[in-house]
Amino acid sequence: MRKKKKYVVGIDLGGTKIMVGLLNKKFRVISYEKIKTEASKGEKYFLKTIFDALEEILSEEKVKSSEIQGIGIGCPGVMDEKRRVVVSSPNLAFLNHFPLSKKIESHFDRPAVLENDVNAGLYGEHQFGAAKGYSSVVGIFLGTGIGGGLILDHKLYRGASGAAGEIGHLILDVHGSLCGCGKRGCLEAIASRLALASEAAVLAYKQKAPKLMQLVGTDISKIKSNAMAKSIASGDHALLEMVHQKSELLGLAMAHTVNLLNPELIVLGGGVLEAMEKYILPKAEAAMKKYAMTPLAREVKVVAAKLQDFAVLMGAAKLAWDEV
Amino acid sequence: MRKKKKYVVGIDLGGTKIMVGLLNKKFRVISYEKIKTEASKGEKYFLKTIFDALEEILSEEKVKSSEIQGIGIGCPGVMDEKRRVVVSSPNLAFLNHFPLSKKIESHFDRPAVLENDVNAGLYGEHQFGAAKGYSSVVGIFLGTGIGGGLILDHKLYRGASGAAGEIGHLILDVHGSLCGCGKRGCLEAIASRLALASEAAVLAYKQKAPKLMQLVGTDISKIKSNAMAKSIASGDHALLEMVHQKSELLGLAMAHTVNLLNPELIVLGGGVLEAMEKYILPKAEAAMKKYAMTPLAREVKVVAAKLQDFAVLMGAAKLAWDEV
Repeated sequence: MRKKKKYVVGIDLGGTKIMVGLLNKKFRVISYEKIKTEASKGEKYFLKTIFDALEEILSEEKVKSSEIQGIGIGCPGVMDEKRRVVVSSPNLAFLNHFPLSKKIESHFDRPAVLENDVNAGLYGEHQFGAAKGYSSVVGIFLGTGIGGGLILDHKLYRGASGAAGEIGHLILDVHGSLCGCGKRGCLEAIASRLALASEAAVLAYKQKAPKLMQLVGTDISKIKSNAMAKSIASGDHALLEMVHQKSELLGLAMAHTVNLLNPELIVLGGGVLEAMEKYILPKAEAAMKKYAMTPLAREVKVVAAKLQDFAVLMGAAKLAWDEV
Repeated sequence: MRKKKKYVVGIDLGGTKIMVGLLNKKFRVISYEKIKTEASKGEKYFLKTIFDALEEILSEEKVKSSEIQGIGIGCPGVMDEKRRVVVSSPNLAFLNHFPLSKKIESHFDRPAVLENDVNAGLYGEHQFGAAKGYSSVVGIFLGTGIGGGLILDHKLYRGASGAAGEIGHLILDVHGSLCGCGKRGCLEAIASRLALASEAAVLAYKQKAPKLMQLVGTDISKIKSNAMAKSIASGDHALLEMVHQKSELLGLAMAHTVNLLNPELIVLGGGVLEAMEKYILPKAEAAMKKYAMTPLAREVKVVAAKLQDFAVLMGAAKLAWDEV
């Protein structure tokens, strides 16, 4: 049967949105739906949302579920060793210990594969995007939090309990700001969207970021990456300097990964990077080269991710295709 | 022919000593010689020393070179991709770009395998010592410098250019002391024998380490690990406190490896650790648990290496046995 199927499904579960997509066997996204995550309505509603979206796509595209090779699911958090059950997902807490694969499998009667969303996205970049053809890749995704993943010898490296690649929780300043993980001074507490927004808000409040103040004010829930990018482009120098400082520490974390893993490539992605690539990437790369051992720094390329919103969808679909 | 040979040879090349050993096929060291490295006499003398030592062992044990499966060589520095040539070895600089494998192979007419000494030692611990049976292992060896290595999926992980595992050069304090690699604040500049000795010398000079002062004085070339251990045991509290502070930073570096790689085991070894295990290991482990993500810290064990002086010899011999 294998490889005779014509389609594969990718699902990207997030704290704010869900994406469900149908891909052909060349992994082109034929059709997809983006739905708002309503975490407060619990797991039954959540599942129904996914089922409805996929059923709608299949019916519109006139595809029978028997024509689907498998369903790949990218989900935030830690999956169990066999990647069947969500062990812990802080942003989708109702999924903790939830047999997500099984529920989706039995509804559509097709095999499902579950993977951490950052790993799925990195795998997408490795198979179809910025990391294609590279043997060893470190992926760092700057969003509301900071996710990381590793490709070693062309494969996802998951570690002893499926949690390898926690680059966002490398501690860069033991006296630094409190992180969501309970520690202090993690990269995520320094350079995530939320960390940038909170310092940007202080700059705005102190009248050092007038463009940002004008655009969105001091409410960190409104200080999105694009607002910061726009304000910098309009002349908020203090904001740019702050982003440069954060990029320097991102570069230190990148140097740690270079010294430990001697990778060929570092891929930077996520909403923060997409909005501010030109302010972040060159500074982070320069700092990495400053802090990593010279011969290793020389070997490694730093590039921006390419697949944006489709990385997880495509990576999860490819995993389902490969593993089913 | 394979596996019908009865013996295998291991060679451990170091900046201060060379060890050459003959092992049987159960990897028991039957006979070995330890020779002082005389780097100033150049590569020809160096090679002759090795040849003489091995020939003497073979003649004493009445073993013909045709009975040897292969020769494994552990060498400090970076080897080329195919591990045939020493690319760069700071402590044995005359070996830079030297075809070490080939020279040894043609002299004994047996195949040779070249490996970075830290990798060889970690492989020894993985095959016969403290890391036996573990799938993912981080090795950290505290000596004159600090070496590191990685076992992932039961195999040595070498990275894109054979230099993965440079744990000694993780930068823990960007404003810290100058390191041999040219950067500042590397773990090696904080917690190697030389880094400990230089702070110990200051303590002795300031009359805060009277036992050490009495034992060896303030010459850092004389402040060996055993002297520090003895002085602490005799009551030099300030010295113990200093070692504890260094162990805390070692623990931070260990936490970086845990967050990135989610390993099952961390093995600590090297002369510094052997002499001061009880002062270093528990503090470093506690700091690792403080700085690494809680679920990952919970998974990982920290143990002392077991094979001491024989780790590199045995690991190199096993690599030769496996790969020839």
